[in-house]
Order: sequence, then structure tokens, then C-alpha cells
Amino acid sequence: MSSFMPTLNDTYATTPEMAEVMSDSRLLRHMATFEGALAAAQADAGLVPRAVADVIGAVADGLTFDEQSLFAEALKGGTLAIPFVKALTAAVRAKDEAAAPSVHFGATSQDVIDSALVLQLGEALALIDADMTRLADAAAVLARTHAKSAMLGRTLLQPATPITFGLKAAQWLCAIAESRTRLRLQAGQALVAQLGGAAGTLGSLGSHGAATARHLTTRLASMNAYAPARASTCEGTPLPWHTRRGGLLALASELAIATGIAGKIARDVALMMQFELGETFEPAEAGRGGSSAMPHKRNPVRCMLTVAAAVRTPGLMGTLLSGMVQEHERALGGWQSEWGALPELLKLTAGALANMADTLAGLQVDTARMRANFDALNGLPMTEMLSLALAPHLGRAEAFALVEKAARDVGATGKSLAEVIKANPAASVLSGAEIDAILDPLNALGATPEFIDSALARWEDAN
Amino acid sequence: MSSFMPTLNDTYATTPEMAEVMSDSRLLRHMATFEGALAAAQADAGLVPRAVADVIGAVADGLTFDEQSLFAEALKGGTLAIPFVKALTAAVRAKDEAAAPSVHFGATSQDVIDSALVLQLGEALALIDADMTRLADAAAVLARTHAKSAMLGRTLLQPATPITFGLKAAQWLCAIAESRTRLRLQAGQALVAQLGGAAGTLGSLGSHGAATARHLTTRLASMNAYAPARASTCEGTPLPWHTRRGGLLALASELAIATGIAGKIARDVALMMQFELGETFEPAEAGRGGSSAMPHKRNPVRCMLTVAAAVRTPGLMGTLLSGMVQEHERALGGWQSEWGALPELLKLTAGALANMADTLAGLQVDTARMRANFDALNGLPMTEMLSLALAPHLGRAEAFALVEKAARDVGATGKSLAEVIKANPAASVLSGAEIDAILDPLNALGATPEFIDSALARWEDAN
Amino acid sequence: MSSFMPTLNDTYATTPEMAEVMSDSRLLRHMATFEGALAAAQADAGLVPRAVADVIGAVADGLTFDEQSLFAEALKGGTLAIPFVKALTAAVRAKDEAAAPSVHFGATSQDVIDSALVLQLGEALALIDADMTRLADAAAVLARTHAKSAMLGRTLLQPATPITFGLKAAQWLCAIAESRTRLRLQAGQALVAQLGGAAGTLGSLGSHGAATARHLTTRLASMNAYAPARASTCEGTPLPWHTRRGGLLALASELAIATGIAGKIARDVALMMQFELGETFEPAEAGRGGSSAMPHKRNPVRCMLTVAAAVRTPGLMGTLLSGMVQEHERALGGWQSEWGALPELLKLTAGALANMADTLAGLQVDTARMRANFDALNGLPMTEMLSLALAPHLGRAEAFALVEKAARDVGATGKSLAEVIKANPAASVLSGAEIDAILDPLNALGATPEFIDSALARWEDAN
Amino acid sequence: MSSFMPTLNDTYATTPEMAEVMSDSRLLRHMATFEGALAAAQADAGLVPRAVADVIGAVADGLTFDEQSLFAEALKGGTLAIPFVKALTAAVRAKDEAAAPSVHFGATSQDVIDSALVLQLGEALALIDADMTRLADAAAVLARTHAKSAMLGRTLLQPATPITFGLKAAQWLCAIAESRTRLRLQAGQALVAQLGGAAGTLGSLGSHGAATARHLTTRLASMNAYAPARASTCEGTPLPWHTRRGGLLALASELAIATGIAGKIARDVALMMQFELGETFEPAEAGRGGSSAMPHKRNPVRCMLTVAAAVRTPGLMGTLLSGMVQEHERALGGWQSEWGALPELLKLTAGALANMADTLAGLQVDTARMRANFDALNGLPMTEMLSLALAPHLGRAEAFALVEKAARDVGATGKSLAEVIKANPAASVLSGAEIDAILDPLNALGATPEFIDSALARWEDAN
Repeated sequence: MSSFMPTLNDTYATTPEMAEVMSDSRLLRHMATFEGALAAAQADAGLVPRAVADVIGAVADGLTFDEQSLFAEALKGGTLAIPFVKALTAAVRAKDEAAAPSVHFGATSQDVIDSALVLQLGEALALIDADMTRLADAAAVLARTHAKSAMLGRTLLQPATPITFGLKAAQWLCAIAESRTRLRLQAGQALVAQLGGAAGTLGSLGSHGAATARHLTTRLASMNAYAPARASTCEGTPLPWHTRRGGLLALASELAIATGIAGKIARDVALMMQFELGETFEPAEAGRGGSSAMPHKRNPVRCMLTVAAAVRTPGLMGTLLSGMVQEHERALGGWQSEWGALPELLKLTAGALANMADTLAGLQVDTARMRANFDALNGLPMTEMLSLALAPHLGRAEAFALVEKAARDVGATGKSLAEVIKANPAASVLSGAEIDAILDPLNALGATPEFIDSALARWEDAN
Repeated sequence: MSSFMPTLNDTYATTPEMAEVMSDSRLLRHMATFEGALAAAQADAGLVPRAVADVIGAVADGLTFDEQSLFAEALKGGTLAIPFVKALTAAVRAKDEAAAPSVHFGATSQDVIDSALVLQLGEALALIDADMTRLADAAAVLARTHAKSAMLGRTLLQPATPITFGLKAAQWLCAIAESRTRLRLQAGQALVAQLGGAAGTLGSLGSHGAATARHLTTRLASMNAYAPARASTCEGTPLPWHTRRGGLLALASELAIATGIAGKIARDVALMMQFELGETFEPAEAGRGGSSAMPHKRNPVRCMLTVAAAVRTPGLMGTLLSGMVQEHERALGGWQSEWGALPELLKLTAGALANMADTLAGLQVDTARMRANFDALNGLPMTEMLSLALAPHLGRAEAFALVEKAARDVGATGKSLAEVIKANPAASVLSGAEIDAILDPLNALGATPEFIDSALARWEDAN
Repeated sequence: MSSFMPTLNDTYATTPEMAEVMSDSRLLRHMATFEGALAAAQADAGLVPRAVADVIGAVADGLTFDEQSLFAEALKGGTLAIPFVKALTAAVRAKDEAAAPSVHFGATSQDVIDSALVLQLGEALALIDADMTRLADAAAVLARTHAKSAMLGRTLLQPATPITFGLKAAQWLCAIAESRTRLRLQAGQALVAQLGGAAGTLGSLGSHGAATARHLTTRLASMNAYAPARASTCEGTPLPWHTRRGGLLALASELAIATGIAGKIARDVALMMQFELGETFEPAEAGRGGSSAMPHKRNPVRCMLTVAAAVRTPGLMGTLLSGMVQEHERALGGWQSEWGALPELLKLTAGALANMADTLAGLQVDTARMRANFDALNGLPMTEMLSLALAPHLGRAEAFALVEKAARDVGATGKSLAEVIKANPAASVLSGAEIDAILDPLNALGATPEFIDSALARWEDAN
Repeated sequence: MSSFMPTLNDTYATTPEMAEVMSDSRLLRHMATFEGALAAAQADAGLVPRAVADVIGAVADGLTFDEQSLFAEALKGGTLAIPFVKALTAAVRAKDEAAAPSVHFGATSQDVIDSALVLQLGEALALIDADMTRLADAAAVLARTHAKSAMLGRTLLQPATPITFGLKAAQWLCAIAESRTRLRLQAGQALVAQLGGAAGTLGSLGSHGAATARHLTTRLASMNAYAPARASTCEGTPLPWHTRRGGLLALASELAIATGIAGKIARDVALMMQFELGETFEPAEAGRGGSSAMPHKRNPVRCMLTVAAAVRTPGLMGTLLSGMVQEHERALGGWQSEWGALPELLKLTAGALANMADTLAGLQVDTARMRANFDALNGLPMTEMLSLALAPHLGRAEAFALVEKAARDVGATGKSLAEVIKANPAASVLSGAEIDAILDPLNALGATPEFIDSALARWEDAN
């Protein structure tokens, strides 16, 4: 495995760990693991002598591959399984002639490919779950730290009423925490071993088929690198899922959703990082994002890669969904279209989450600039609060009319709303101090504290 | 509502019930319901007198709309909520001047649009869940009835080993049953009222914000037409989800997946309905699928519409995922892209499920033709079973060589495998009756009975 | 047609004109036109008496429909053509019994549906082409007017070197002009009548088939509302394209591309319209985009709808491409998936282009703010120009080091680059006036004038 | 380059040649070519001494890279161009200190990445165009050879009227020939060098910018491996297209369309290859598609990979379209999303076309089985021809009624239509020989010969 070399696309799209987890050599390793577990499950079921299973398991564990020649053969038969099983069988035969016929016995190509995918997904989701946790933890810190850091709320890219940066971070937290919960749930139901034989009946295993399937399911689940997948208990006899891809698709959907969430965070950060806003910044790092030719530039590289990932994953998800319309007992094209799309989806999701976890963990926040950007609106985002405060004194209609006029004056004169309103005798029902308090964004946050607390509490409960 | 007229696209895409549930007038109705519930929740929270809330609720309940003029205004402001709230406020004012300021108080456009969507989704999912149940029930009947109806298993559109039609139906059942389970789960977490106010803080509600949000959530949940959504309890203060769309997306994903499952069933049925196979047929029905010009044609219209739906939903899901990268506290474009895509997804899913429920409920199954198609292969799908049976007598290598030669002879002569093998003295270790039994597909079904039982048992447990 | 009522989705997605062009009733009208033209072409070919063709044409012209009952029948047979032809035949029979058998003679459902689509596309593209022209004209005015309006170039949402607003507009112009050229080209090859009969042979027309196809092609082309489609000459015998959708897809692609271009313009305008930038604004209009509750808000409604369109069209294009894998002589699902996706694509494209044409035609440009935003960077975007100017005097290495140091000082002190550099004796090789000239963005525009001229010249040539 | 190792995904998705053309090392090679050409163009424009340009060109030509370390640096800055230019500059400096400042002078990262892409696309399209030609040539041979090989036309997977296999092949030919024409056209307009500098003005090049851009465009066009790209003349000053991606997208669309066409052919072949039809077969080849365990299976591996490609390309195209909404002068995410999606699209298109070219070139056609499958319908596809023939004798209504009854009898008795109709005295207006002629599918082909001739003639004209 040390020979693994990420491509440029791997480098941009994902983390080095995920690139390796999704590598061809790792897939072959899991295929070997499957064959060992299958033989063991057949021994469990009394179909094969334990000693034979042990030989197969040992040989599979130690097997190495000439990948390029396997791939060339894979192309001819349309599946990697054929040359792989040939290689394994030869290696077993070399060690114990009598064990050879039991290699891959009763299984079909799709059994080994899909079951290996389940193991690979386990490793991949363990990485993804960890980065989700890291991302949510970082968002939680920001939510707590900046619970009272007032800033401009923005809707349709226009100024709205005040929020705090902590609330924005609490929403990020909530989004990713919910996604992690759903991911674990989906993994628990989707990461199940595949075993159906040539047409999904386990016909060659005769009366031992159902027991073999149950034993294999338990064995592979226990080996899965992702804890929620280990929890997947097997009620009744597990049906193979060769052309029943719903569970896998539900899992994949959550990956695409997680990337979308990361993309939303990335776009928020990149927008706030605009020179004209200057509110947050990706962590500074040697050689990252700087431009020697343009010292004033600080490129949001992590955000850029994350948004790119979020642009790419919807199409991959579309492919996986299109592939669901599968013919009979093995699809002609639909299943095989997963082979390219699913690994890419996993890579991009991992990259996006890791980039945003790094970004939030080291995010530079300029709370003064946040406040200044709010103040640059001269109090206009507070008009409704002011109207509501004046209404009990002046009547609703008059209060709103008064404030609307004041707002126009602010726009025309460049004075602040406080100045304008204090200068208006009609507003003298409120003292200057009262007006200042009303116009203070920190007094206009409504349920913000409860929202932040709620998000933090749920995250604590989830851990 | 009686004025609702489905378009041609509605007609092809969905059921009349769903077309009406997703109609504009129904959306307006739910928007009115939201405004009544909001006022009531504010009364619950002590923010508004109960009498005022009652007036708003009553007026909202009875409100009718000039849709075309609302739509024209909606275009100007970019949201239907603005003219809608204007109309409602005017109607409330006409009844009780003092109640008018409390209409939509503290809420923003997105609150009413998204909360109305939640109610609309509730009605839509109730229809979808019912058709999922109908589809699964029909598949369960087929699985039970045809548990022993042997047919050719087919992989990559080529003959494989035997299965039974009951197993195929059990896989369909299992797919849709799992989808229903996931849908209910997703609905339970996603169908939550939206209430955040202008920038997601409920600033105008001051200290009453959190309580109002909790009361509204409970009220709208209790009104939801879809039972799993009613179960959605509200732990802590429910955060608004204006730009946090993960829950909604997870729900939408399951709809796309369900359509994919329906598409797989449709393709299976349509392929089996080819003249050259003739194994299953869509239910005959006056005027449906027949061609007077071509009496030999029997068009699989329901399958056709279902496959078309499965071709359309992946792109819609891609759109929804692309829309997740939403800016700040309200997206510029991303949220609004849901408005066209999500209703279309719901319609297509409902149409696909209903079409397949109808198809399986009335499916014509020609078991004789299934068997004949299997027999047309002259026993070739049974070669492995025969080899395995001969191996203990002849040794594995010799047994496989013998059967391979026999298979070639079958191909060359057009004789059956039984004939060829019985004529070969080397195979006389088995009696003719033994050979016939080995070559009987019903003796080669492996775990098929356990798989079918498992699928049926799980379905029973789920109901 | 006066009864046509746009849905809410129609309202948001498109223009009223396009909503009507894409309406069901207009489709039915084109279907009637096709049947008249088919009969006329068969008269041209000597297959049918001219009088019979005239009757059919006259009846078809005057035919009205009970749409809801047609749609209900359409669902049963899976195509609108069946009840449509039935209705037309009945009407012809009522007028001239003998003409009835010649209605739709030799044609199949897909012939009338696809040929009507060609006519409908003609009307739709005429609208789209006109809005492309309007959009490009508006961009051309901006390019010319603002050829020297300096502003900050921005890459990765960060400040780069100066550009002019005219250059930005010239790029918009160039994009849409190229798209219009490609659209016309694609329309010329794709908008061809469909005529193949039951299986694409025109078998029922015997030896008259090829001539009928040629005459029909010429007739329908001459009726097409879009000029480039009229130019489509018919070399040789035109093959039907029932399952050969490449030409249609190429045309559809260009629509999706045009929407992407409009989306890029919309995002640019919306970003420049951020309060913190304030450089451009959608045209002010009564009731559009304003928010009475928030007087400081000015919502970019047209940009919002356009970005939403650009989020939706890629998925629709994905659907159309997925639908291309069509079986044999008429697809089961692939063709039918076009029925929902293609009209939606046309509507969204028209809406996006019209919104951006309106936006650019009335765009409010604040050139002072553009310049101020540039100046806020204190000259930092000019560092490379300064280094290049100093290099001949100081040597390259020293010049770059000097400027890098100055840039750091600008960052640290908040002084301008001009101030800092003039204060440095090492830079005294340049006079103050020379430094001012070097740091003037209008002197650093490189090929900007040529680029603008080139875009304008090409646009003039294209018209 | 000899060190290039295709991944498993490369192996399945594409040809070895295309995998290498799209490899990272080939991209780096084209980037070096660009830098040499840029220096040469600057010499052409009088901006740089020719000797300096020659040094840069020579060093660039001979440059080798430590890819893994370049990639690691690329990740930090978000672009491969930064470490690449650094490496090139160091190498030039080592050879000629004075030439170093002229490396990449005035250009930006996107210039070298996009221009290298244009050269890479040139190599890729040359491969794709060649396989399109090979595929069309093979289809042309089939069209000619089987012009009169009658077979069942099939619509909605149901029997329709007769066609010939030559007509089916003529449609395939026509589809791919049209696609090649469009591809060449799009390449001629899209494969243009990118040169804009930091913000698209070529500011650093001062008054030499426009001339440099023109020279570079000419130079790179002349080097392009794809002839249609060489033809791309440069009218006026070529604007950079950093965020104007329409031309590239139009080219990419045609690739997605071509894959869809290949997918349609693949599905047709795979359906005809079903055991129950047995009409066409992928070419037999050692180790390809056979299954030792199931001798009756002959897997359509090439069709499978082609359909899988056609399932994957729509999503990739969706991604590319989504990426078009690019911000200002360089996108944050939209451009970068092309990096992964576009190469994958090229690979899949090449693989699909090559697989179908191989398939059609060696297609095994069983014309006897085609005819037998037609005859199995007992003449039912001929009912309309028979009715039309009887109508002049019996009157239309009676003729159709007679034949409808006969068709029912055929269905009920299993006799042939010929038998049934000859036995009916009412049909004795036609002799037995006349009836046989009418029921002969070869006499019912309508415009089939003209359609085939037309397709072949156009293909000849195009070559």
C-alpha cells in the first residue's frame, strides 16, 4: 500500500487518508478479507472444514497483486472479481490443492465487489464521521465564544436585522450534527454484507445458504471499521441486495447532503472574507492562499475547494440515482455506474468536511469589523424595533410613519437613526438613553440565546 | 379548490390526488393555516390576546384568493408571502382593526412559505406512504403466491441460474418496505415548523420568541396530515432552518430513492412483458395500452410513465442538492430553486408508486411461460449443480470437465442437458431419476424460501 | 387560449409570453397544424386528393378541445396523440366522411408529438433569441459607456488588479452573443419535422413515404416561427429521429448554457449590489424588491430568480441526457421523460434571459463607489505595476523587494501606497507625478480597450 | 510518461490511450508547452528578446517534474500553476538568470491551466473523433449489408411493424455522424488559448497585451492535435474566457450527447442479445464476456460499460453547467469543479465510443433469428398493410373489420394471419399469392431504402 500515489484530482478533492482508503489496492485488500470471511462463514455453517477455511483466510490475508495485469483482465470480463478470484484460487492451490475448490464457493462477482465496498465504506465513514465531529466541535466553540458578537444578518445578500456570529455558528453546528446522526443511522442499515450467488438464491450452497449468509453478515459486520455498521444486527435471513440499492443510496445521499452543508459554510466564510466585509478569515498558513504578486490577496483556498466539491456532488448523486433502474438479477450498466461515482462522492465529502473543520478550527474572527459593518448602516436595521417601542406611546400607525420618515432622512443625510430620531420632538416620549438601548443590536436578539443553547445542548447530548 | 385543473404534465406525472395536494391553491390554504397557528402560538406565549388570535385564525380559515393577482405581486417582491400577508391583513382589518398588526407578527416570508410546505408535505407523504404500502402489499402477495414459480434468473440481461418469481417479488417488497421505513424516519425529523423572523433570531418577538417557536412547532406538528410528522416532538427550542436544509434534503432523497425503486420494478416488468419473454403483463384495462392499429401490441403504459419518472427525479434531486449552498441568513437563488423542483419530485414519486402499485396489484403472471423460457435453455443453467453432484463420484476436476463437454454438446446439438448426460456412460454413477432431480430448478433454489420468508416476516413486523 | 392561467411556478420561472407558448393548449394547436400539413404533404406527394387535404387542414385549423377529457384519455394510452387524433378524425368525419381515413394517415403518435414540439420550439426560441439580443444590446451599451470606469477586479472573491466595468460588461456581451450564434446554428439542424410512422419506415405510405417526408419537412420548416429553423434545408430524404435525439439535445444544451451565462451575470450583479460594495443595482421599480419593514433592503429579485433558474437547469439537462439511452424504435421512458423536462428548461431559460435583459437595460451603476472601493485598498492592487516601473532603475530584485516592503507598510499603517513609496528615498528615481501616474488604475488596463472593442465589433458584425 | 499507471476506474471507463492523454503528467507537459509559446508570443510582440523566449521554450520542453511534491504545493495555493511556475522559473534561472523574470510574465494561474486544457482537449478530441469515425464506418457497413434484413420493429419494448436491421444501423450511423459534425464545429470555436493575466486585462503587458494575445492564440492553435481547432482563426483580439465558459460547455455537451448516442446503441445491442431474442452479439473474444461457470452466458461487457458511461455523463454535465455561475473575474469553486468533472467526461466518452466501435465492427448478426422472431408473431405486424390492401376491394370499414377479426383468430388459434385470411371467403378478392406478397415484410418497408441511402450518402459527403 505504501506505493499508493494520489492523482492531482485526489489531491484537490480529498484528504490523503481518504485517497488511500479509496484506492484500488485497498479495495483488493477488502476483497481478500471477504473471501476469508466467506470461507469462515461456510465453516460456521458446516459446509466446509474449518481447516480449509483457515487456509483460505491465511492465503487471502497474505495475498499481493499485480494490479495492472488484474485490471487488464477485469476489463475483459467486465469485473475485477474474475481475475481476483483466479489469483486467489491459484495461491490457495499452491498451498493446499484440496482447499482450492472452496475459494469463493457459491459466490458471484457482485458478492465480493459489494461486500468489499461495505468494508471500504466502513473505513471511509470512520474518517468522515471524525471530521464531522471535528467540524461540529469547532462550530460549537464559535457558537459559545461569539454568542454575543453582534453582526449584520443578511438575506438575499442584503442587510437584514442583527444576529450574532455565535448564532450563525450554531446553525452550522446544528446542520452538521444532524447530518452525523442521519449518517450513522443510514450506515447501520446499509453496510450489510452482500451474498447471493449467481442469481441471488445461493443455489450452489443448497440448504446451507441461509446459514452461510447469516454467519457472513455477522462476521463482516464485526470487522467493519465504522462502529454504527458493527451495530447492524441481522434479523432473519439477510437478503442479498444486488439490484436493491435503496439502502446504499440513502447512505450516499447523506454524504451529498453533508457536502452541501460544508458548501454552505464555505460560501458564508468566503463571503465574509471579502475585502469589503473582512469579518472572518481562513486560518493563515505558510504557503496557503497567499499571493506573492498580490500581497493584499488572501485566497480562501479551503472554501474554494469545498464549494467546488459541493458543485460536483449533486451530479454524482444524480448518477447514483439514475443507476437504480436495474434489470432483473444484475444490472447492465446501472450497478457498474456506481463504481466510478461512489468513490468520488466519498472523496469529495471527506475533503469538504476536513477543509471546513480546519477552517472553523482556526477561523480568524474580526468582531470589531462585524460591529462596524453593522454600524455602517446607521441604525437602519433597527427601524422595526424602534417602531415597536414607539407604538405604545404614539399609536401604531403614527409610530411606524415617524420611523419610516426617519429612515428616509438617514438615507438622505447619512446621519444615524439615533441622531435623527432624537432630533425629532415627536419621539421625545422616549429618552435618549432609552433610544440608545432600543437601537443596540444586542438588545434585539430575540430567541438567539435560546437557539444557541439549544444547538449546544443537542450536540452535547449526541456525544 | 374545485377549480383546480391538472396540466398535461400533472396528468402524466402523478395521481389526481397528488396534483391537487401540490396545487397552488392548496399551498395558499396551508399558508393561511400557518398564520392562524402563529397567532395562536403567540397567544399561548402570552404575546397576543387570545381573542386577537381567534380573529386571525377565523379570518385566515375563510380567506379566498385572487390567485392570478397574487402571483403577479409575488413576482415583483420575489415571494408569494408579501401579497398573501397583505391580503390576509386587509381581511383581518376589515373584521377587527385592532387585530391587524398581529397578523404575521414577527415572522418573515420564508417562515410562512416553509411552514406551509411542511403542511403540504404532510398531505403529500400521507398519499405516498399509502401507495408504498399498497405496492408492498401487492409485492407480498406475489412473493407468497409465486414462491415456487420457477423462472430464469437473469444477470446483465443474460440467462443465469434459476430463481422463482416469488423471490423477485420479495426483493421488490423488501426494497419498498425499507424505503417506507426510512421515509417515516426522515419525515419525523424534517417536518418541523419554520419560524425565525427577518434574520433567524425572532428579534421582534423579544423575550417571547423561544416560547412562540415551541408552541408553533407543537401546533403545526399536531395538524400534520402525516402521522410520523405528528410524532416529531420538540426537544429544546426549535431552531429555524431557513438556510439549514439538510433535514428537508434527506426527506427529498428518500423520495428520489423510492422512485428509483419503482423504476427498477417497472423495468423488470416491461422486460418480462417483451413479446419474446411474455412472462408478466400490466393489468389489462379498457383503453389502456392497447393499440387498435396493432392488435399484437400491449403497451406497458404504467411502466413507461414510471421509468420516465425515474429518469426525471435524479436531476431534480441534483437541483435540490445544488441549492444547498445558501448564503448567510437567506439564500439568493438556492432556496428559491426548491420551489419548482420539490413539488415536481413529490408528484413524480407519487405517480411512480401508484402506477407500480396498480401494476403489481393486477399483474398477470404467466408461470407456464416462465418455465418454458427456462426450459428453452435445455438445462444449461443447471451445469454447476450437475457438476457439484457428480464431483463426489468422479472427482471434482473430472466432473467439471464432463459437464463442460456436455454443455458444449447441448449447444451444438440442441438436445437437452438431461439427454446428453444420460447418454454418457461416464455419468452413470447417477441414475436417470437422480439426474432429473438434480436438473429440476425447483431443487436448486438454495436459500430462496428463507429469503422470501424473511422479507414477508419483516413486512408483517413493519405493519 | 385566452383561458390560459400561469401557475405560481410559471410566474416565477418565466415570462408570461413563454408560459403561454409552452402551454398545453398551444401544444394542441401545433398538433392540429401538423395534421393539416401532413395531409397537404400527402397531397403534394400524390397520395391523397388535394380536396381531402384541404378539408383536413380546415377542420384542424378550427378544432377546439376539451383538454381535461383529452388528458384523461392521454393517460390511459400513454400519449396525448391517441385522443387527439380521435377527436380530429371525428370532426373531419362530421364534415366529410370520405376524408376521415386520411387523417394522420401513416403517421404514429410520436410523429405528431415531436413535430408539434418543433413548432412550439420555434415560437419559444423566437422569444429567447429576442431576449438574448436585448440582453446583449444592454451589455453593449454598458461596455461602451463604462469602458473607462475603473473598478476592482476580483478573483476568488478577493481583490485583484483593476479592470473597468466596461470590460466586465463586454465579457457578458461576448458570452451571450456567442450563445445566440450557437443557438441559431443548433436550431437550424434540430428543428426538423418528425415523420416515421409506426416503426420509422413509413411502411403504410408505401412508395410515397420518402416524398411525403420531404414535402412535410419543407412545409413545417416554412411555418416555423424561428427564422433559423426556416433555413433548415432538407438534403436528401429526412430520416425520422424518434430515438435519435442528438440534435434536440444539442439545442437543449445551448439553452442550459444560456441560463448559466445569465446566472453568472446575476451573481455578479447581486454581489456588486451587496451593501458593503454598492456598485450596481437592479433597476428600481414600484413594488419590486423593496421591503417596507426594512427600508435599507433592496432585494435583487431578478438576480434571485435568475440564479434559481441556473440552479435548476443543470438537473433538467441531466434528465434529458439520461433519457437518450432509448430502446429500439421508440423508448420506454426515455422519450417520455423529455415531456416534463424540456418545457421547464425553455421556461427557465426565457425567464433568466428576460430578467437579465431587464436588469442590464436599467442597471444603476455607481462609478464613484466603484472607484472608492478600489481606492480603499490604498493602492495595493498596483504593486506589480510599481515594481515593473522601478525595475529598470533599481534592478528587478531590488525593485520587487522595495515594493513588497512598502506593501507591508501600507497594511500596517493604513497609509496609501503612494504616500509610503514617495516617502522612501530609494524610490526617488521616480518623481511624485510619475508615481501617481503609475498607480492610476486607468493607466494599468493593458488590453482592456482592445478587448472591449473586439467584443463590440463582433456583436455589430453578428447583427 | 512511461510511468503512467491507469487506475481501475480508468480501465473500466476509457481506452488506454485516453487514460494517458488525460493523465496528470500530460497536463504538466501541456503547461510547459504553454509557457514556451507564451514567451515566443511575447517575442513576436516585441516584448521580450527572442533569445530569452528561446531559452524559456527549450527549458520548458525539457522540464521534468516531481509530481507528488508539485501536487502537495498545488493544494496549498489551490492551483497547480504556482508550484509549476516556480519549478520552471528555477530551471530557467539555472540556465539563464536574465531569462527568469520573463517566465509566465503577465500571465495568471488560470491562463496556463486553461490553455493547457485546450491542448489536452485537442489530443483527446483527436482520439474521440477517430472513434466516432470508426463507429460510423462500422454502422455504415451494417446499414449497407443489412438493408434488406427484415426484423421486427419494436416500440415501447413491444412488437411494431417490420423494419430492416440496416435501417436500425442507418439511424445509429446518422446519430454519430451528426454528433461528429457538431463536435468539430464546437471545437473550432472553443479550443482557444486563454490569456488574461491577473484580472483579465493583461495589465502587466501594457500596450503589448493585445498583440501577445493574438500571437499566442495563433501559436497554440497551430500546435493543437485536433485539426478543427487548428482552423480556429482569430478575428480581432481574442478576449480571455476565465469566467465565460459557454464555448467550453458547448463542446462538453457534445461529448455527453455522443455518450448518450453510444448508450442507445449499447442498449439496442444488449436487448437484441437477450437469449430470447438472439439477434445480435458482441464480437466473441478470448476471455471477454464468457463465464466458465455458466457456459450459456455471453456477457455484453462492452455494452455494459457503455451504458454505465451513459449513466455517468449526465451528472458530470450537470456539474459543469452548475459550475457556470462564476463570480467576477475568477470563480470561487465553479471553475475548479471543472477540474474533476471534465476529464472524467472525456474519458467516459472515449470509452463508450471505442467500445461501440469495436462492437459494431465485429458484431455478429443472426438474420435468420431476426426473421424467425418476426415470424413468431404469425403475421400480426402486417394487419394494417393487409387492411389497406383489402380496402379498395371491400370498402375501408369492412376491410378493417375483417382483418381485426382475423387478428383475433390468430391470437386465439396460433395460426398465421396468412392461413386465417386465406381461409376466409370474404378475403378471396385477393389471391393466395397476392396475400403472401402483402404479408411479406420486405414489401412493407416504405421509405426504408431511401432512408438508408440518405444516411449513407450524407456520411460519404461528410468524409
